[in-house]
Amino acid sequence: MTLDAFRSDLGAIKVEDNPKFVQKKSRDFYWYSPVLKRQLEGVSAELVVTPQSEAEVVQVLRAAYRHGVAITPRGAGTGNYGQAMPLSGGAILDLSAMDRIVHSDATRVRAQAGAILEKMDRHTKAEHGAEMRFFPSTYRTATIGGFVAGGSGGVGSIRWGGLRNFGNILGLTVVTCEEEPRVLKLEGADVLKVAHAYGTNGIITEVEIPLTAAYDWVGVILGFPDIIEACRFGEALGRQDGILVKEIAPVAAPVAHDYFGHHRRFIPRESSVVVAMVAPQSVEALEVYARHSDAKILFRSDRDAQGERLPPVFELCWNHTTMLGLKVDPSITYLQTQYPDLERVKRIHELLGDELPLHLEVIRFDGRVVFSGLPIVRFTTEERLEEIIAMHEENGCLVFNPHRYTLEEGGMKRTDRGQLAFKREADPKGILNPGKMVAWENPDFDFDSGRQWLFSGLQRADAA
Amino acid sequence: MTLDAFRSDLGAIKVEDNPKFVQKKSRDFYWYSPVLKRQLEGVSAELVVTPQSEAEVVQVLRAAYRHGVAITPRGAGTGNYGQAMPLSGGAILDLSAMDRIVHSDATRVRAQAGAILEKMDRHTKAEHGAEMRFFPSTYRTATIGGFVAGGSGGVGSIRWGGLRNFGNILGLTVVTCEEEPRVLKLEGADVLKVAHAYGTNGIITEVEIPLTAAYDWVGVILGFPDIIEACRFGEALGRQDGILVKEIAPVAAPVAHDYFGHHRRFIPRESSVVVAMVAPQSVEALEVYARHSDAKILFRSDRDAQGERLPPVFELCWNHTTMLGLKVDPSITYLQTQYPDLERVKRIHELLGDELPLHLEVIRFDGRVVFSGLPIVRFTTEERLEEIIAMHEENGCLVFNPHRYTLEEGGMKRTDRGQLAFKREADPKGILNPGKMVAWENPDFDFDSGRQWLFSGLQRADAA
Repeated sequence: MTLDAFRSDLGAIKVEDNPKFVQKKSRDFYWYSPVLKRQLEGVSAELVVTPQSEAEVVQVLRAAYRHGVAITPRGAGTGNYGQAMPLSGGAILDLSAMDRIVHSDATRVRAQAGAILEKMDRHTKAEHGAEMRFFPSTYRTATIGGFVAGGSGGVGSIRWGGLRNFGNILGLTVVTCEEEPRVLKLEGADVLKVAHAYGTNGIITEVEIPLTAAYDWVGVILGFPDIIEACRFGEALGRQDGILVKEIAPVAAPVAHDYFGHHRRFIPRESSVVVAMVAPQSVEALEVYARHSDAKILFRSDRDAQGERLPPVFELCWNHTTMLGLKVDPSITYLQTQYPDLERVKRIHELLGDELPLHLEVIRFDGRVVFSGLPIVRFTTEERLEEIIAMHEENGCLVFNPHRYTLEEGGMKRTDRGQLAFKREADPKGILNPGKMVAWENPDFDFDSGRQWLFSGLQRADAA
Repeated sequence: MTLDAFRSDLGAIKVEDNPKFVQKKSRDFYWYSPVLKRQLEGVSAELVVTPQSEAEVVQVLRAAYRHGVAITPRGAGTGNYGQAMPLSGGAILDLSAMDRIVHSDATRVRAQAGAILEKMDRHTKAEHGAEMRFFPSTYRTATIGGFVAGGSGGVGSIRWGGLRNFGNILGLTVVTCEEEPRVLKLEGADVLKVAHAYGTNGIITEVEIPLTAAYDWVGVILGFPDIIEACRFGEALGRQDGILVKEIAPVAAPVAHDYFGHHRRFIPRESSVVVAMVAPQSVEALEVYARHSDAKILFRSDRDAQGERLPPVFELCWNHTTMLGLKVDPSITYLQTQYPDLERVKRIHELLGDELPLHLEVIRFDGRVVFSGLPIVRFTTEERLEEIIAMHEENGCLVFNPHRYTLEEGGMKRTDRGQLAFKREADPKGILNPGKMVAWENPDFDFDSGRQWLFSGLQRADAA
């Protein structure tokens, strides 16, 4: 049997086939979406393989190629769209044991794919007074490899944009899935060939990212009479060039009060809020700016509740907002959107009101301060969800559909020609995370459909 | 005689009255402007007083108040609009001997007004791996007090905006000019009362500013076939959120070649250039981005001319460009402008061509990447200079006229009510740097003339 033959080629490499364990390692937070929950419920691999070194990764991929076994790489499984869920079964390649920091200085850190983000930061803060530019709200559990393969940005994106931007990933080591797997060190534009590709065209074993100055960020929650005022302040704060922030998230009443249990007593139920992280040297400027903007400071992590250990405020943001909501009300879900301006936020809010309690993230996008959205959806039916998506699109607001599990359908990613070409080279049998790259499955895929993509690839490079 | 009485009140405080020395200390780089050169040629104080401590500043101001002697504070005299030139004679208050660093940590530094910017940075880099957010191109000689009292931004403004922004000045100590001078510690919004006021409403004795991560910035010069292409690249680079830069300055052919003597052999005469400072961890991303934008890297400070000691590339930028030009062609002068977009840059370039060789600075202004201009003017007559200014204004481009010596006429500064009120309190006799604040001299001054100002004050605070 294929799988037995594959297994016997693995020698001493750690393999697990306990079905409960394998099922657990075959899942991520896909169940935030009722659509994906229905579609992916039954998905499971047959084995979990846990290499301890790059040499073992090479050995696994050599065996997978020989025996045609599907390989789906996985970090901590903190994705939300089934990025690391094995649609064709086969083996999960669990990279979490490869968690060594390879190199670090005050400007950069290189780590193995399985290194946990918080641990990397702890190391570089202690050694160099430096920290990573941005990270997802799953910072305490997510791995750097998983972030680069399946994430897009997060806390810090108000300053540094996202993984899609040049200069935010400095280098990757990738192992190909060929008869004799190669270990490739990618730099410069080449990193875009495999970044945010869900591991479909190479297994990332090392990641190098730039660092920035580390600060003891102060978590602040500001109160506003309504969500539009909160958004207005959030955008204006994002444009304050002299106030150093790492996070700005407007969240509508009443969900801020309802969902943020640890901070609930600081937040009146009728208050919409802005959750922010501010550098210590900018807290006073924020206080002044808040005063002059009629914003009320409800909570400051350096002042309030010093006796207890409250979670960091970034765990109220990004998809942690959704998670906190699901704990309170398991029937909700969410969307991923982009609102070009406050007018559009207003229009959507007027159309949908409390059916779509707004949660936005103020980020930089190509040098501009924009509203990225992770609104809560009070879910009723899949049909209504589609209607809500259509209402966004009709009003000129992008939707990156988090209820789709392929790279392209979510719209976060345009599989550019370079990336598809790299899959032909690195995964000729098409056994790396099969089913996730539409362009691979469908040779007639239209690259130029006019659709807008978050990761649009390097267009000038395409043309060349 | 008044001046003798003043002098005798100064006790052991250092005073100089040698006319040559006093004239030298009564001047700045006002002669960059042929208009100011004509107007201010004869300006001189009668004395130079050089206090060694805050207590001595208090003693000088007490004596000045008693005897009604005009006091014009001065740092290194690196201003360009006669900021520190004593229009009414009297005494120059030379603060350069007060140059002690009062406090520093990884987030901030507090220094006496006379501390030289480069020395402050040297200190904080060595102690904390941190440096100031932005500085003028006169960094090697300018003082922190002079920068805050008479400057607006500079190298680093692409990241941090300018002195006008909240959070870029954390604190000031100011001595008032009253019967019994007070020593005031200003924080928060209060710093705006005296920032960029040319010392007209209090003598700044200490300044506290925030710091950011220090890097060994790489100086880069990129070549383009014309200035519009250089501007297009400069703006796009400013919008690259993942590429950390501290400076972006497009400079037109042929003046880049003609004026930049130390770097001339790297710059073909027909090349327009972008001068940039890039963090080491972003150099490779810049190389990639340049390649895909058809920009040619002409010079990299970490690669070229390693044997010699070339000046840092920021000494090709801001008003150093003008200074280098004046060394080659003493007949030129310059303007200070703001172009809302590339279209407007193009229109002005089409109208004026080589009569106005463009030198722009790409900066952040209220969260947006914009073109600030310091174009070279091939000067003929004052009338033609006025025409060129009018052509800018007719085409929707702001001019902050560097051929005016008052706060308001240059347009860099709106004297807001708070600032004027503070002068009434801090300088009731109106003897601090007299003649520079129009609103003081003219009680009918119209605050709401609809004119746009760089320093617009805290409007919500005005209203309150």
